[in-house]
Amino acid sequence: MTIGDNEIVLGVDIGGTNTKLGYVDRLGRCLASASIPTDADQPAKVFFRRLQQSAKELLQSLKGKTLVGIGIGAPNANFRKGTIEHPPNLSWDYVDVPAELREFFSVPVAVTNDANAAALGEMLFGAARGMKDFVVITLGTGLGSGIVSNGELLYGADGFAGEIGHTIVDPNGRFCGCGKRGCLETYCSATGLVRTIQELFCNSTEPSRLRAISFHELTSEMVFEAALRGDKLAAQAFEYTGHILGMKLADSVAHLSPEAIILFGGLAAAGELIFAPTQRSLEAHLFPIFRNKVKLLPSKLTKGDVAVLGAGALIWDFLAKNK
Amino acid sequence: MTIGDNEIVLGVDIGGTNTKLGYVDRLGRCLASASIPTDADQPAKVFFRRLQQSAKELLQSLKGKTLVGIGIGAPNANFRKGTIEHPPNLSWDYVDVPAELREFFSVPVAVTNDANAAALGEMLFGAARGMKDFVVITLGTGLGSGIVSNGELLYGADGFAGEIGHTIVDPNGRFCGCGKRGCLETYCSATGLVRTIQELFCNSTEPSRLRAISFHELTSEMVFEAALRGDKLAAQAFEYTGHILGMKLADSVAHLSPEAIILFGGLAAAGELIFAPTQRSLEAHLFPIFRNKVKLLPSKLTKGDVAVLGAGALIWDFLAKNK
Repeated sequence: MTIGDNEIVLGVDIGGTNTKLGYVDRLGRCLASASIPTDADQPAKVFFRRLQQSAKELLQSLKGKTLVGIGIGAPNANFRKGTIEHPPNLSWDYVDVPAELREFFSVPVAVTNDANAAALGEMLFGAARGMKDFVVITLGTGLGSGIVSNGELLYGADGFAGEIGHTIVDPNGRFCGCGKRGCLETYCSATGLVRTIQELFCNSTEPSRLRAISFHELTSEMVFEAALRGDKLAAQAFEYTGHILGMKLADSVAHLSPEAIILFGGLAAAGELIFAPTQRSLEAHLFPIFRNKVKLLPSKLTKGDVAVLGAGALIWDFLAKNK
Repeated sequence: MTIGDNEIVLGVDIGGTNTKLGYVDRLGRCLASASIPTDADQPAKVFFRRLQQSAKELLQSLKGKTLVGIGIGAPNANFRKGTIEHPPNLSWDYVDVPAELREFFSVPVAVTNDANAAALGEMLFGAARGMKDFVVITLGTGLGSGIVSNGELLYGADGFAGEIGHTIVDPNGRFCGCGKRGCLETYCSATGLVRTIQELFCNSTEPSRLRAISFHELTSEMVFEAALRGDKLAAQAFEYTGHILGMKLADSVAHLSPEAIILFGGLAAAGELIFAPTQRSLEAHLFPIFRNKVKLLPSKLTKGDVAVLGAGALIWDFLAKNK
């Protein structure tokens, strides 16, 4: 046993409904994990008190381990400032995370948004091991992205870089929750897929059992299962989603020239249904010097642990650079 | 006089027709410059022999100065490999630049594309002094771009990152020299402006003296002068160009979150005619967290010297990092 082998970090993923936490060692193994309700209608102070209680209980199950840092992934989190600002699904306005945790823990705290945490997780423990230039796209309710360039997360001037979900597919296109029109995430996300198949219901005469389900009840999982059963419109919806995604990722490649683009999250789990059309469209829309160079890969992080591993990777990376 | 004050670098800008060279000191002053025809129909070997002759003659005019490095900006140049690969307007296939210069000079050589050189020039000597995250857009015959992120030029996995000119405005849009359709540079460049006003001639009934000029003879300068004279179609052509440019730069901001975007080159010299609509469209298409944050600035480098200063900045930067 070498010195430091008993060191662990706490990785936390704050979600709209639940918050996951886990202790992660230097090799990216999650040694213990737990989940608490976020209860984001209550003040942030109350949340952080409950978080430390759960974290301290969990730490007791890990005999002989020393906590050396805390990494937090959260929506609208800013690495530079250590803040969470106007998160879309939480009622907290502006949270200074290190300040909230200081009264409970005396270790370094690092904060970043969930997609950036996923990108760091892929680099340290997942599909991007050994890569210095890549993009992680998280296809969930929305479309998040984390960009790594020359081995570093790209934060930009204000710490908010990497909002590929809000690049524009069509300036007169679908209304987006952000107030703009035609954003990529209105097409390429779980909700985007549902919007697309509803559009296909209108434009096509092809029968589909999904036509019996209301807009509100229809989920991307139902579209996935229908596509597997041979539903033509469901397959077309995936085809269209991949077509749009590949086209816009070609723009990302023109900016960043990544070695790989890694797809992560619910929609990415649809496998070839989403990967095949995305890859075709990406290659077709690439500036010629980039063709046949950029790998399109699935995430290699275990689904349940990924956000916690990513948050753990964030603080391991921070500790390594601030020794 | 401190040690090193007599040190200078050679900056070279290889263009399709002419090649400019100049000696640049550590403060970004061009102490002497010259120009030779590129004569790119002859082999690269012949060109580099002529280049060193001219450079050595020019150096003799600078008594007491010591050459410590050579920086080269060229189309399709790759910083990582030191190569120029299939440059669009030169007949050279693949040139290993340091190898070509080794027999004449025994100092370090660094190579990059012209837009990257301009970005370094702006960072060290121009409008981006003190900035760590910015984008330079060169609006010439085409649209080039150089991206600086966290104080470093963004090269990506293969050294070719920063091809914003080939992001897609409309997948069914104008044919581009690269073989794709709807690339940004087919709209936002000197040639793009001319294509736009021709489209306006077709779609509008508005009179314009420019209608008397053939497609071949019409230049972006003529459109600029007509706009200044009050030609409505010429003004509309600038308005449309800025509208498209601002929309696509909003995508760049979503990726990179730069502190500033710097416009450089012929079209940028049109001042408010291009800056006003670009700024309006950029703000309108930005993801809300980026609004009112990103500066849109004109280049601060003297037009004649910029490419030489940029190439000089490249090698000064290289020398500083490889001490």
